[in-house]
Amino acid sequence: MQPQSGSPLRGSRCRKLAEQQPFMEEQLIDSTLEVIRAALQSGRIQDAIAALTKLHPTDRAEAFSELDDQAQSAILPRLDIPSTADLLEELEDEEAADVAENLSTERLADVLDEMEPDEAADVLGDLPPETAARALAEMDDADEVIPLLSHPDETAGGLMTTWLVTLRPEETAAEAIEKLRSAELEPEGPYYLYVIDDSERLVGVVGLRDLVIAKPQTPVRAFMDPDVKSATTGIDQEDVARLMSRYDLTALPVVDDAGKLLGTITVDDVVDVIEEEATEDIYRFANLHDADLAIDSPISISVRRRLPWLYLSTLTALFASWVISNFEAIFEQVAVLAVFQSVVAGLGGNAGTQSLAIAVRAIALGEITIKDIWRTIVKEAVTGIIQGISVGLIAGIGVYLWRGSPWLGFILGMALIGNMLIAVIVGTVTPLLLKALRQDPALASSALVTAVTDCAGFAIFLGLATLLLPLLTER
Amino acid sequence: MQPQSGSPLRGSRCRKLAEQQPFMEEQLIDSTLEVIRAALQSGRIQDAIAALTKLHPTDRAEAFSELDDQAQSAILPRLDIPSTADLLEELEDEEAADVAENLSTERLADVLDEMEPDEAADVLGDLPPETAARALAEMDDADEVIPLLSHPDETAGGLMTTWLVTLRPEETAAEAIEKLRSAELEPEGPYYLYVIDDSERLVGVVGLRDLVIAKPQTPVRAFMDPDVKSATTGIDQEDVARLMSRYDLTALPVVDDAGKLLGTITVDDVVDVIEEEATEDIYRFANLHDADLAIDSPISISVRRRLPWLYLSTLTALFASWVISNFEAIFEQVAVLAVFQSVVAGLGGNAGTQSLAIAVRAIALGEITIKDIWRTIVKEAVTGIIQGISVGLIAGIGVYLWRGSPWLGFILGMALIGNMLIAVIVGTVTPLLLKALRQDPALASSALVTAVTDCAGFAIFLGLATLLLPLLTER
Repeated sequence: MQPQSGSPLRGSRCRKLAEQQPFMEEQLIDSTLEVIRAALQSGRIQDAIAALTKLHPTDRAEAFSELDDQAQSAILPRLDIPSTADLLEELEDEEAADVAENLSTERLADVLDEMEPDEAADVLGDLPPETAARALAEMDDADEVIPLLSHPDETAGGLMTTWLVTLRPEETAAEAIEKLRSAELEPEGPYYLYVIDDSERLVGVVGLRDLVIAKPQTPVRAFMDPDVKSATTGIDQEDVARLMSRYDLTALPVVDDAGKLLGTITVDDVVDVIEEEATEDIYRFANLHDADLAIDSPISISVRRRLPWLYLSTLTALFASWVISNFEAIFEQVAVLAVFQSVVAGLGGNAGTQSLAIAVRAIALGEITIKDIWRTIVKEAVTGIIQGISVGLIAGIGVYLWRGSPWLGFILGMALIGNMLIAVIVGTVTPLLLKALRQDPALASSALVTAVTDCAGFAIFLGLATLLLPLLTER
Repeated sequence: MQPQSGSPLRGSRCRKLAEQQPFMEEQLIDSTLEVIRAALQSGRIQDAIAALTKLHPTDRAEAFSELDDQAQSAILPRLDIPSTADLLEELEDEEAADVAENLSTERLADVLDEMEPDEAADVLGDLPPETAARALAEMDDADEVIPLLSHPDETAGGLMTTWLVTLRPEETAAEAIEKLRSAELEPEGPYYLYVIDDSERLVGVVGLRDLVIAKPQTPVRAFMDPDVKSATTGIDQEDVARLMSRYDLTALPVVDDAGKLLGTITVDDVVDVIEEEATEDIYRFANLHDADLAIDSPISISVRRRLPWLYLSTLTALFASWVISNFEAIFEQVAVLAVFQSVVAGLGGNAGTQSLAIAVRAIALGEITIKDIWRTIVKEAVTGIIQGISVGLIAGIGVYLWRGSPWLGFILGMALIGNMLIAVIVGTVTPLLLKALRQDPALASSALVTAVTDCAGFAIFLGLATLLLPLLTER
């Protein structure tokens, strides 16, 4: 049996998170790895397994994945079914699939039976179709997993587990407790019990605490809460996370379109979603469109996933160069323009990225809706003009003092005002527009915003300079 | 009584989150606001209050804060104590303090007694010291709140609540249930009961489910789990969130240095922390160093909080201009260099920001430690060179074909390789260095990285061009 998820009971021996030692578990894993490697070298495989299983399942999976292939293949066949199930639940998706492929069909089926249905479905989804079909055929609890296979990973249906204890309104508290007791074989502890009617439609929820303090003969109907929030299977995981976080929910039941109860989503899955989405947003800001990419990814993957966006940036950069090339002759007359053109482009990019971050985050946290769009744009435009004047004045005066040319300072200042106005509007409008088109707002990566602010910055600055060329050359 | 936090029971009438309607609660709030405004205009204050209290507390607070001052002052004195407590718990910190200041001392004390101690402590911390002192003097449960006031908001001590049901190892399951029943007056439902010894030190935890299914005469010792993870008061909230997310905990007990149980942190607070930290990281990426800034902040605040970082960027941009100015004479001879200098700087900035995002996120999620630093730097350096060659080749050949000058293409390509190498190393090392110095890794905002890649990019490109000037001008 794996320990209860969502419970602080899962035990490793490390007790108190010592102050100033946030990376304590790393040390524990490292020292355990040393013990395991030493044991394996002297052929004491049981000692290695004992050291590994002493760790918390989370740490155990991390330690296991740091072992080399040879060590993994030595340990894997000797792990018991529950520990193997723990391992598959805690490993990253790809690694879990690798491990699963190395098990015999029979063993894999036993392990999948032991796993939470939603985790088992995830592993099955990552396996080659024939392997998955063979394992499903051997499984005892295939019926718990099969309905989950049809839901995309990133929806409410893909997040939910089907392990539920359901009650009927007419049952008594004593009967409910008896049900809970006999459901003990499934250790994934429900902290809420859902109440369904004759058509299996969700009609209420009972908290364990209410059950404990209810008199034994009270019917469930009397202490259930009929106002229960639920999600339909197709809802995006981001909206599930937003809903659960907004209303401080620790569990969310999932129903089909007719209101029939299908499963439940627990808060620990949602915490993972929130972290995943935050990584995704930050990555998109940095022109990385793959949240799977981690610092320990192999170089080949790392390069392959970063390069496409660098190529795109190369294209936009060359386009900005083309904008400049239209003014090329001016540099032969006023070389100093080449010195300052990047100031206008760069500061526009900064201001645009600020607006973009605020808008992307406001959308992610549900703080802004499409109806606010005009008010927001006007507000940002005013902000952009004020910022442009503030920065333009300082930079313009600074450059005038440095280079002694008042007109150069004037052109720089004016170009900054214009480009900042464009920057904040592009930074704000693009993600809102993407949201309205039902696209990911963070797709408006800063690359797009800086491409616009680069081109606009060069065009405004060099255009103004061309217009005022006689004034610039007369000094 | 406010409803149980962390429970899906909190009821609004909105039942099923309809597919494709993630903003349903916005519509509910808007229609309720219309009802409230109409009721207030015709003097039916009770109707306004009835409409408001029909909403879920979260939505209620949002609706309340959208009302104008006049409407708020009409409603506030007529709200009952529990609803006012709900309101203060759900409003943003500053708004909650505003509302609290508009209550009489007596009323405020009653409301604070009704609130979760950690929320009450937060409100008291935001009030003027005299107001807070007067309210504390009037409170019945001041002793629950006072110990919390000494902990900084962003630590485990600042996050914890002191509402706990504690058991002793020798008590029976039946006695434990009786304790839980009599604790009913405090509606903030504990889902875990903590077990303490004679010195009030934490020795175990009991899940409600284990309690429900235990035989009445079994002592707590027999079914408690002695392996319970805990945090000391001073631990940073980010480390608390990382720990609870890593081990899928829904509650984390907080102890003092001697192991004495002081309170508990629930997962809903941690979800807020994770979202706050994600906003902070994204904002820092965009050179916004204040996570409080939202899309609906007033323009004055918006400008005041963005400008300092734009001024900093102005300084770094002017420094980059100074780098260029050292090569100023070259533009009079080879104007085309002004066209392409920004390509090198810009692409370096992009590559550096990618590395920065990966490193910042790896640190935030605890995926990298200081000991990995050398391996990571070497890996990034290789990645940078491969990227530089890939992008440099394409851009170099492209520019050669466009402008017909092989040496211009060669210089551009070489400068790209050099600058990308610098970019990935700076992007990776800076956050790791900041972490080693116990600073926030995200402080290494992209502004710093782009400042370095700008200066390096201009210097390498124009430096190479100066060295190879005869080759560039001979065509």
